[in-house]
Amino acid sequence: MVRLMPKSKAELTEKEVSQRLETLAKDITVQIQKKEKPTFRTRVRGKNNVVFDDESLLLDLGDKWSTRNFLNIGHTRKFMQTLLVLEKVKEYLDQNERASIREIYYELKQPIEGSKENKVANQDESNAVIVDLEHAIDSIRDQLNITADPKGGLYGDIDITDHLDKNSKYNCTEIGRTGWGVPSDVEPKSISLGNTSAKYLLVIETAAMFDRLVSKKFYETNDCLLMFTKGQAARGARRLIHRLHHEKKLPVIVFTDGDPYGWTIYSVIKGGSMALASYSKFMATPEAHLVGMTMHDIETYGLQNASEKLEAGAEKRAKELLDYPWFKSKEWQNNIKLCLKMGKRIEQQGLANKNLNFVANTYLPEKIENKVFLP
Amino acid sequence: MVRLMPKSKAELTEKEVSQRLETLAKDITVQIQKKEKPTFRTRVRGKNNVVFDDESLLLDLGDKWSTRNFLNIGHTRKFMQTLLVLEKVKEYLDQNERASIREIYYELKQPIEGSKENKVANQDESNAVIVDLEHAIDSIRDQLNITADPKGGLYGDIDITDHLDKNSKYNCTEIGRTGWGVPSDVEPKSISLGNTSAKYLLVIETAAMFDRLVSKKFYETNDCLLMFTKGQAARGARRLIHRLHHEKKLPVIVFTDGDPYGWTIYSVIKGGSMALASYSKFMATPEAHLVGMTMHDIETYGLQNASEKLEAGAEKRAKELLDYPWFKSKEWQNNIKLCLKMGKRIEQQGLANKNLNFVANTYLPEKIENKVFLP
Repeated sequence: MVRLMPKSKAELTEKEVSQRLETLAKDITVQIQKKEKPTFRTRVRGKNNVVFDDESLLLDLGDKWSTRNFLNIGHTRKFMQTLLVLEKVKEYLDQNERASIREIYYELKQPIEGSKENKVANQDESNAVIVDLEHAIDSIRDQLNITADPKGGLYGDIDITDHLDKNSKYNCTEIGRTGWGVPSDVEPKSISLGNTSAKYLLVIETAAMFDRLVSKKFYETNDCLLMFTKGQAARGARRLIHRLHHEKKLPVIVFTDGDPYGWTIYSVIKGGSMALASYSKFMATPEAHLVGMTMHDIETYGLQNASEKLEAGAEKRAKELLDYPWFKSKEWQNNIKLCLKMGKRIEQQGLANKNLNFVANTYLPEKIENKVFLP
Repeated sequence: MVRLMPKSKAELTEKEVSQRLETLAKDITVQIQKKEKPTFRTRVRGKNNVVFDDESLLLDLGDKWSTRNFLNIGHTRKFMQTLLVLEKVKEYLDQNERASIREIYYELKQPIEGSKENKVANQDESNAVIVDLEHAIDSIRDQLNITADPKGGLYGDIDITDHLDKNSKYNCTEIGRTGWGVPSDVEPKSISLGNTSAKYLLVIETAAMFDRLVSKKFYETNDCLLMFTKGQAARGARRLIHRLHHEKKLPVIVFTDGDPYGWTIYSVIKGGSMALASYSKFMATPEAHLVGMTMHDIETYGLQNASEKLEAGAEKRAKELLDYPWFKSKEWQNNIKLCLKMGKRIEQQGLANKNLNFVANTYLPEKIENKVFLP
């Protein structure tokens, strides 16, 4: 049996990740040389091994492990594929190369020697073993030099250095109104966060609202950084929020639509997601707060005209949220129950119903100054 | 009857657009004062008024016009909404303000005086009258200061000045590996294109392929600009391609997946789209060429392992392409027929099947140097 890796540190160096891969491969080799059945262990993912820690406020994986076995007919193909991915990823790390999960799939889509069957037949197969592998060595794929599409942007007074791009250094108020496009890989080895005069980070759900606040120079009048996630925050965006909070000591304030989907975006930034439960310690920011939109905003700011009907899917989702441990506070229960009672939702762009700049001149400054947040 | 506007120029100033709006409003006022039925005319959109010009290679709207009439019960609501949008947009232009179509919807979602009914009940209504209005004054919404979400990025040696953002000036090789996020509004009044040493513009379908080419410094070794569209090119991306071609005299080379969807992305960049047929003259670039992927690439480069099955939806789409006038050349007919015969498609990331950097070191330089393009 391949031994368990020690509990991961928040930051692994490239060399350490490469060594973990090598150790895993060597252990399997030794098993084969001893004529034992080759096996390795990986953590069980999915709902029934996800736990929420009331103290850290983070989602994490529980204690269940699963053994992958080469001499089990059901596992053979997957076992082989894991070692193929391991080999590729080790190569990337040693050559300072990076690849997307799609490229890895195509790299491995080659016929098995002496057969017409491909080693990997579709991307679901290679994706699954990538997850197996990252958990087997208790790392995250970003540290395996595996990339994803960039999503999200940052604007405001902070210096960024991109070590993967000629060490370019730029201030995020000087590169145009769309700001800095947040890459999928914002690990410290790739991106350095430099000086900032900002007092907090405002994370915004929609690009259109970000655009409005940038054009109104909200970052300047309110001394903050502005970031948009364009819906659910991508890995790079979540990792960057985490780093800005921990390294730059910036309070994180989240601004989403007032509906179960917006509040889920918030909860993922704050405590992590079930799908990536083991990533929370790298990526989540439990100290984050939600400034809005909340159901009470509708009455407080007279936004009845701008509220929209809560459709059946959203209603179902709201009922689910009521049961999640991370929405158990009195404030959140009140908010979600009010949403169900009113049968309404309210979008952040709904604030335009007062006037276009109500959000920048009144709503946000007032709520942030008075700390009218949901926990 | 409100008179037709003169044929639009390629570039209208903010003042000219504002004047056209004012003229339209005045004409309607005069009709009312004369106790005539208030009416205005707008162009008919949709398939049965779209024409393809064999000479310019552009899609455009045909000659059909439609009259909106206030005293026609079916038109009354729409007529009112058009004037409300006209009023708002005029206000934006005069105050140098901008707004998204979602914000316009929320701004207008107010009850009609003395009634519980809202002036605009859902965004479909306001979206439709925005299109009516832009065609009534023969302009485009970007010139009406109406914004959309940004999509796409640009990397390479070119100086950009963003007049909507403190006139910031930056070179697109110095702002990180994600490059410059292309805004929805890249009109000359907003964005100036400065010096460039590039010899051509390579437009890429996926962000992941863009990322690969940036990381391999393809822009440097091949003296080009790199742009990604992330699927179908957004308005800002198409307008920017058009401007880079016309103002900087850059040949435009497009690099998409080898399937009917990728080729449609190409044809929209080249000749325009049916949905926005009247925009082609501002946004399309008929001199563009496609470098790949093509069906012949599969054999030429031994990419059989990397090809994927052509699913039913894609097959149907390929058959439609065969009939479009802009795919009537012998080369395109051969390519599409080969796709149907093989029942295969090939993605740009499929080139990783040779090796990760085959695309940057071999495929693109070889095909571009030898001008192995589809027209």
